[in-house]
This record gives sequence, C-alpha cells and structure tokens, in this order.
Amino acid sequence: MRTVAGIAASPGIAIAKAYLLEMPELQVERQTVADTKAELQRLERALAAAKAELEEIRLQTEARLGADKAAIFEAHVLVLSDPELIGAVQAKVESEGVNAEYALAETADFYISLFAQMDNDYMKERAADIEDVTQRVLAQLLQVKLPDLSLLQEEVVIVAEDLTPSETAQMDRRYVKGFTTNIGGRTSHSAIMARSLGIPAIVGTKDITRQVQDGEMIILDGNDGMVLVQPDEEQLVAYNDKQLMQQQQQEQWRKLVQEPSVTADGHTVELAANIGTPDDVAGALVNGAEGVGLFRTEFLYMGRNALPTEEEQLQAYRAVLEGMGGKPVVVRTLDIGGDKELPYLQLPKELNPFLGFRAIRLCLAETDIFRTQIRALLRASVSGNLKIMFPMIATLQEFRAAKEIVAEEKAKLQASGHAVSEAIELGIMIEIPAAALLADQFAKEVDFFSIGTNDLIQYTMAADRMNEQVAHLYQPFNPALLRLIDGVIQAAHAQGKWVGMCGEMAGDLQALPILLALGLDEFSMSAASILPTRSALRGLSQLQLQQLREEILAKATPEEVLALLDEQLEEVYA
Amino acid sequence: MRTVAGIAASPGIAIAKAYLLEMPELQVERQTVADTKAELQRLERALAAAKAELEEIRLQTEARLGADKAAIFEAHVLVLSDPELIGAVQAKVESEGVNAEYALAETADFYISLFAQMDNDYMKERAADIEDVTQRVLAQLLQVKLPDLSLLQEEVVIVAEDLTPSETAQMDRRYVKGFTTNIGGRTSHSAIMARSLGIPAIVGTKDITRQVQDGEMIILDGNDGMVLVQPDEEQLVAYNDKQLMQQQQQEQWRKLVQEPSVTADGHTVELAANIGTPDDVAGALVNGAEGVGLFRTEFLYMGRNALPTEEEQLQAYRAVLEGMGGKPVVVRTLDIGGDKELPYLQLPKELNPFLGFRAIRLCLAETDIFRTQIRALLRASVSGNLKIMFPMIATLQEFRAAKEIVAEEKAKLQASGHAVSEAIELGIMIEIPAAALLADQFAKEVDFFSIGTNDLIQYTMAADRMNEQVAHLYQPFNPALLRLIDGVIQAAHAQGKWVGMCGEMAGDLQALPILLALGLDEFSMSAASILPTRSALRGLSQLQLQQLREEILAKATPEEVLALLDEQLEEVYA
Repeated sequence: MRTVAGIAASPGIAIAKAYLLEMPELQVERQTVADTKAELQRLERALAAAKAELEEIRLQTEARLGADKAAIFEAHVLVLSDPELIGAVQAKVESEGVNAEYALAETADFYISLFAQMDNDYMKERAADIEDVTQRVLAQLLQVKLPDLSLLQEEVVIVAEDLTPSETAQMDRRYVKGFTTNIGGRTSHSAIMARSLGIPAIVGTKDITRQVQDGEMIILDGNDGMVLVQPDEEQLVAYNDKQLMQQQQQEQWRKLVQEPSVTADGHTVELAANIGTPDDVAGALVNGAEGVGLFRTEFLYMGRNALPTEEEQLQAYRAVLEGMGGKPVVVRTLDIGGDKELPYLQLPKELNPFLGFRAIRLCLAETDIFRTQIRALLRASVSGNLKIMFPMIATLQEFRAAKEIVAEEKAKLQASGHAVSEAIELGIMIEIPAAALLADQFAKEVDFFSIGTNDLIQYTMAADRMNEQVAHLYQPFNPALLRLIDGVIQAAHAQGKWVGMCGEMAGDLQALPILLALGLDEFSMSAASILPTRSALRGLSQLQLQQLREEILAKATPEEVLALLDEQLEEVYA
Repeated sequence: MRTVAGIAASPGIAIAKAYLLEMPELQVERQTVADTKAELQRLERALAAAKAELEEIRLQTEARLGADKAAIFEAHVLVLSDPELIGAVQAKVESEGVNAEYALAETADFYISLFAQMDNDYMKERAADIEDVTQRVLAQLLQVKLPDLSLLQEEVVIVAEDLTPSETAQMDRRYVKGFTTNIGGRTSHSAIMARSLGIPAIVGTKDITRQVQDGEMIILDGNDGMVLVQPDEEQLVAYNDKQLMQQQQQEQWRKLVQEPSVTADGHTVELAANIGTPDDVAGALVNGAEGVGLFRTEFLYMGRNALPTEEEQLQAYRAVLEGMGGKPVVVRTLDIGGDKELPYLQLPKELNPFLGFRAIRLCLAETDIFRTQIRALLRASVSGNLKIMFPMIATLQEFRAAKEIVAEEKAKLQASGHAVSEAIELGIMIEIPAAALLADQFAKEVDFFSIGTNDLIQYTMAADRMNEQVAHLYQPFNPALLRLIDGVIQAAHAQGKWVGMCGEMAGDLQALPILLALGLDEFSMSAASILPTRSALRGLSQLQLQQLREEILAKATPEEVLALLDEQLEEVYA
C-alpha cells in the first residue's frame, strides 16, 4: 500500500481500479508538400471533423451538466474558426509548402507559449483551450484516436497528468467514480467540473501518474486529499464502511427535504439555492431549497456570438420562476466584465479586472444591454415571485439609476399592454465595502440586501483569492469582515428589510453559528449544501448564539473567533 | 484667437511662443547587405552611441529631478542590453542578410504591437519604452538628429503629439514654460514629470498639434485645462495679471515657511512632506515641512540589477534623518510587487496586482530583503527622529510578525555593538478596509496610523483609479470612506495614539475642513502643497468644524457632504 497526498478538490470516497489516462504522443514532423492546395483541403477536413467532435461533446455536456458548463466547447469551436489562428496556419502551408500538421503545431505553439508565459490565469486558460483544440485537430490529421472517456464500460478512478475540459465533459458518472491529477488547484477547471458532477477528486498530487500503474486498485478520499494505492484488505473494509456511512448520512439528510429550516429553539431562516441555469431548478428542489437566493444570468450571455434577445431571456427567467412554483427567486442582473469576458462586447482588457468595469458599472454605461434584461425580467415577473438584485453596487447613485431604469421600463411595458407584477422587490448585492459601510443609507431605499462574501472578503482584505500567494488573507472569520456583515444586518433590520448571503460562506457549516448570532435571514448556497445546513440548524439555539454576538465582534483575529466558538458551541448546541 | 481644451495636468500659467515638437520621419527600407559582419558592427556602434546618449540624459535627469525620476533611463539602457530583443535583431541581420535598420524596426514593431495590444497600462508603458529606445537607435543608424530640448535658447511652450520620457527629462525649466500634448491623462508619465518640474501642462487635447502653428503665441492655463492660441491684447493683459497674482500668492505663502500649522482657534496640526529620495529633503524644508510623513523607499530598489545593500540603504536613511535635523521622519518599508516590478526579483505576474503579493506581504515572505532594510533603518535611527511604517497591513498577525522581526534585528545589532535608538515608533499604513475596520484592535499595539487614502479609496470602492472607466468611483468625499477615516481616528485617540494621512487627500484643500472635523493629527503631502495648506488652516476654526462631524458622517452621498460644507464653511472660516 502506498499513499499519495494532493489537494482535496471534490468531496466523497471513490474505490475502484485506476485508469491511467495518457495522451498519445502526437509526433509532428516537418514535411514539404508539393500540392499545397490538396494539403489545405486536408486541413479543412480535419478542422471540420474536429468541429463535429466538439459539437457532439458540447451536446453531451449540455445534457449532463447544463448550458453554462457546455459554453466552453462553443469557445473551442470559435478557436477553430478564428481567422487569425487558422489563417496563419493556412498561410504557412502555402508560403512554406509544409504539411498541415507542422504548420498547425508551429502556429499553435507560438500562441500557447505567448499566452502561457503571461503568467495571468485568464490568458493561461486561453493557452489551455488552444492546446486542447490543437490536439484534437492534430489527432484528426495524424489519424490517431484520442482516448474517449465516454466509451468506458467499467468503474474506474481516472489518473492523469491533467484533464482537459473536453475530457472532463466526456466522463460518464456511472463508470468514472473519481479522478486524480498531477497538477491543478481547488479552483482549476477540472476541480470545478468535479464538484458539479459530484465526482470525488484530488488534484495537484505532483506525480500520481508515476505512482500508480494502470489497473491497480485505488481508494480516493476527496474529503482529505489522500490517494491510497493498492490498499490492503483492512483499508478496503474501513473505507467501504466510511463510504457507506456517508451514504447513510446522505439518506438522513434526504428526510429533511420537506422540513422547515428551523433552529432547536424555533427560529426560522430561509435556505435557498444558488443556480446558474434553468436546468439547475430541479436539483435545487430535490435538495430542499426554499427559494433561489442567487440566479446568475451570465449563462445567457456566454458561449455565443451576440447578445441574447429579450425573448430568449424571457424564456429562461420564466422557466426558473415557474419551476420554483411561487417560491422566491432572486435574479442577479448581468455580472460580466473584468475577468469574465464576452468576446462580442469587446470590453477593454484591464490591469486589475476585479477593480474594474464590470457588472452594474457596465450595465449603467451600456444601458441597451441592461434595459433588454430588465424588460425580460419584468415580463417574466407575473410567472412567480421575482426579486431583482443589482451586483457590484458601490454608491447610492448607482442603485437609484438602476431603480429608475426599472421604473421606466415597467411604465413602457404597461403602456404597451404587458402585465408586470406589482410585488417585485429590488435589492443589491453587498460585495463592496463602501456599500456595507453605508448600509443604513441604502436600507432606506432598497427592499433587501444579499451579502456576496466572495467579493466582499476580497475587497475588505485587498486580496485576490485566486492568487495563491495571498490566499491566506482570504479570511471569512476575520472580525473586520464580521463587523461589516453585522453592520449590514443591523442597518437592514432597523428599516424592516431582510438580509441574505449568497457567497460561499453562506453554505459553510463552520460559519453557520456566527451568521445566526448576527441575525442573517436567508442563506443561499450550492444545492448540495442545503440539507447538511438544515440538519446542522436543528442542533443550534439562536437565542444562545445571539448572546455571543458582541463577544465575537470584539475579537481581534480569526483564530480568536474560532476559539470562542469551539469553546462555546457545546453549550449552544441544544 | 482660438481655444483648445484638454486635461489640466500641472497647474500654473504659461505665456510664450509655441514650439511644435515633431519627431523626424525615420524612413526604414529593407535592403540586402552582403557583408553581414560589417552590418552587425554598424548596429553595435549605434547601440553604443544610443547608450551613451541615454547615460547623459540619465545624469542630467538625476541632477535636475533626483534618482527616482532618472531610473527610467536605466531601464532604457537595459532594453538596449536585452539579449532577447537585440539577439533577435542580430539574428535577423545574419540569417536574412538585411540592413540593421530594417531588422531593428521589424523586431521592435513585433514587440511594440504585442505589448501595446495587451491593453494593460503596465505593458503599454513597456511598449512606449521600446519605441522610445528604438527611435534613438534608428536615428543613430540613419544619422538623423533627434530634436534636443536641452538646446532651446528662448522661452517656449512645447506642443507635441506626446512626449517621451527622454524628451520630458531634457526640458530646461528656464526656457520651457509649459507644454501641451494631443494624448495622455493626469497620471501619464509626462503629466507626473510636469508636476515634478513645476511646469504648467495640459494633456489629452486630441489635436493641439493641428490647431497651432510653430511660433504662434500661446497662453496655457494649467489650472483649468485651456489653451488660448494667438490671444488678443486684452487676454494677454488679463493672463499676465493672473500669472502675477499667482506669483504674489506664492510669495505670501513663502512667509509662512517658519510659521506653525495652526487653525484660527489655536488648534495645532503637523504638516509634513511625502518624499521619494534624500534629494527631496531640501524641497521639503524650503516649503516649510515640519517632518516627513512618508518616505517611500522604493527608489533604492528600482532601476538596478540587484537588491541594494544594507550600507547603501543606511546612507540614504541617514541622509534623510540628518537632513531633517531631528524632525520626525516616517519611513515606509518596501512597497514593491503588484504593478511595481523589480526585474531582478522575478515576481509572478498577477491577474489583479492591486489585490496581490506586494508590500508587507512580500516582505514577510522574503524576509531576507525585509531584514536588510530593517537593519539599515535601525542603524540609521540614531541620526534623527525615526518612525517605521509598514504598508498594506491587513491583519494583526502581519503587524505582529513585522514587529517581531524589528525586535530580533534590534537585539542582534545591539549584541554586535551597534547603537539603536530606543525611541523608534512603529506604525502601519491604513490602506486596506480590514485594518481600518479593526483600528481599535490595532491601536492597542501600534504607535501610530497613517491613512493611505489612494489605496483605501480603491479598495473601499472596489475601483482601480487608474482605470478611466471606473475613475468616477474614486470618491474621497464618499461618506463610506469618511466613516472609515473617522473610525480610525476615534480608535487611535482612545488609545492615545496619533493619526496621519499620506494619500493625495491630505493635501486637498477641499478635504481639509473635513479632516479637521474628524480630528486628523498629521497631514503629509507633496512639498508644494504644504504652504497653501498652512495658509488655509489659518482661516478655519477647528472647534466649529468638530461640531459638523456627526452631520458629515450622516450624509448619504459625496454631493451631500460637499453641499453641507459649502453651506457651513462661511461660518467656520473665522
């Protein structure tokens, strides 16, 4: 038995044979070709075949994971249609009289090394996209078959150097029980996909492909990041038990789907789901969501060549509102820009995209885009319980401008005979310190707040959480942050308004007692976290936690906050 | 008479003839050369001549503007020594048998367009550097003389498309009375240089070079961004009067150099200078600085190939402490990283450098660099009144770690017989919201705070002020920011600690009454702002301003804050 440690990227235990996924060596040699016209046709056929493969993968992914996860393959098709890249390959074949493989590999290498050396996560991802796509076309040209994970027929744990987006998308959950890779981190593409698929995963092991032989038995514990290679009988039994216990806990949680979200002493909160597409509604309801606390609308805008129409948006909003059957649905207006690009909008590149032209800032400047979305939302409003939320609000002036646009579009729609709900609440994300600090002023004008902790922590600590070198400063339990959250809740309650939270902290069981102590009303999280949270709630006494509020806020460090909770929590768990 | 509007980049009025600065067309044609060896020698000679010119410019700049402003020319020399760039040119001459001009222009164009298209301010600046340097070498190769502003013999206002760093550095203040350019913004290199040189300037006029003929009379009003071309007699008289009045005001201010910084009702504050090098001490004292509130130490680390030694640093710190003759000197430890690069440190490129690995974060990770600086500071401490300030502190743990390192190095120095002052205060920059929000906790452990408004506003508003599209969110008068500042001052005073400010807001006369109302103790600003501030102080009553504090903090928008001041200020001006 050997153990290999890595980064726990997706929880759960997988026990199966290792499937060593190796990319075939695609040997490219420079050859001179006399008939460049025929060679260009060969290239054309390979491109068409690769596009067809990608389209197939895209459809599979959309069916399994939804439209937003499939968007990346539209981006890949766009790479293959990029006149700059493909034009350069064609020009090379023609002017140098070389084979298509060589021309493609050389051209792609240039762009890959250019983007990869930029040491900028966004550009590095573009390099990975080009590499993924290039491999696919080269395989076509060389008539080499790429491994196809959709063809698996037995249960395995995938072991690989890294997984490309297309490989991850091809995984069939019935057979792929987990995966582990040499490289990657918790936020890398394959890690995010693993969590979406609910497949246990460990990344960043450095050398798992050299530690494991194909076909060896593997235990992968995605909870603590350990891979056991060729476990002994005792370990197999122990981990089978552990896996079983986890499954039993899952079943216990399932019983809470229809139960209220209530503490031991009878205090009720709302547990809602964060969703990305209408397809996510089913999963939210199955997991007992009492509403949607955050419906991200970016999927409508991504992986395409033009803005979505008002009708397209209307369909999507109506689907979610109807799907939730009258339960509250908080829709966040477009949060694009900065690091989230839309090629067809030609947004400027920015030195600090997280501090840049994005979300409501962009919407208030490009009001056509914003008004179209608002109209679609207003028209959908009669299909359910709609609340509209504006992201990245920093100033009252921004909220007032957005509210004015909503009022104008509502009047226009009503004048042209459209029905619009009169009960739509308008709220803002609290994710910028300035808005949190002025919450008392905002509370007079908004209907609700939803605290976006991911960004709020980043700005409050001045630390990009995607940047590994400052990730230690991403501190949800820092008293500075807790004071901001407390101030927001106090200010809202003073005006009779409710406060939700839709950052990762809302689904963090360690944070739950603190957020109860501070009086948070609504918790919106990934669907999979709802039932564990509901279960934990039932063991906590809100009254006792409230009495800890001042003590928590008077602490100086995250460690002191957590120590206080450790010490007191036995008492407050009823 | 015609008027052209632009961006006011440096204040003051200039009245003189226009000098239309045009870059000669450097026509490069592709020629084949038989003797590539001789061609390479020609290139070598041109590079050597360009380096000699740059060295001359560097020396002039250092003499006129100090070492930090001259650093850019060391960077230019490094470009000419860059094996990647020059190697590519040489390879092109050899392999293609082409002339050096063509090889250089082609290679440089590739890099320039690569960097320029990145739409990232830092990389764009690199593109401008390469362009500036390439022009210089091409001029050598083509034996074309570049315009040399140091040869001017009469008073002029320079009119240009843009000014390269080397052109700005060559300006002789005796003859260059002002300049105006088609492109650029308030923070572009030439605008910053203009303010350093004290030359009125207007940038971003779009087409001033097409609106003005060489030799036409010009009035340039750097206070409001207007250029008057061929003014009539009446205007000349009016602007001569205005210029005279400004000069008289300057003379009035001069009389306050030795006066205390005191309000009409006898409340004393400290007015200090922000400095960048020991050479700035003279200017600080001439302008009546009562101390140095911010000594940026980055100049020691920039424009060189290796870290500065402890001895080099000791010289610089001692020079400032002695120069200030016992007045307080707040030295900020190294604030590098993020967008401020040191090539020899090989820092990673970051997606959001302002939220990245910089300043104290880097110093606590690379403790060798930090300890060397601390030792130099401790050894210098006996030469004056030293206070050490750590930048970018987000958590108490960081301050404690930095303080511990100071204590360790002090003990080691004393053990080896070095004298170290026992009166060194240790403080932190308040430029991250988390530190401001926990100021009560920090105040128990630090000796002082200095509020860095430039960054604090950026993080509080989540807006990069260098990014034009969100520059409107850089709001010093936003009540959210004022509440943070107020909290910091209240927390410090409760522990008997003092609070300074070293961001641009500290020297803003419009902000002065607010900062007095909030109780700020020390104001540190560019030397040129000290006397106008001292003059304004004498007209304000702190007691009356203090009574406005709560009302200011209860406002909802910057506009409301400014309206309150407008309304009340007549009363509080004694």
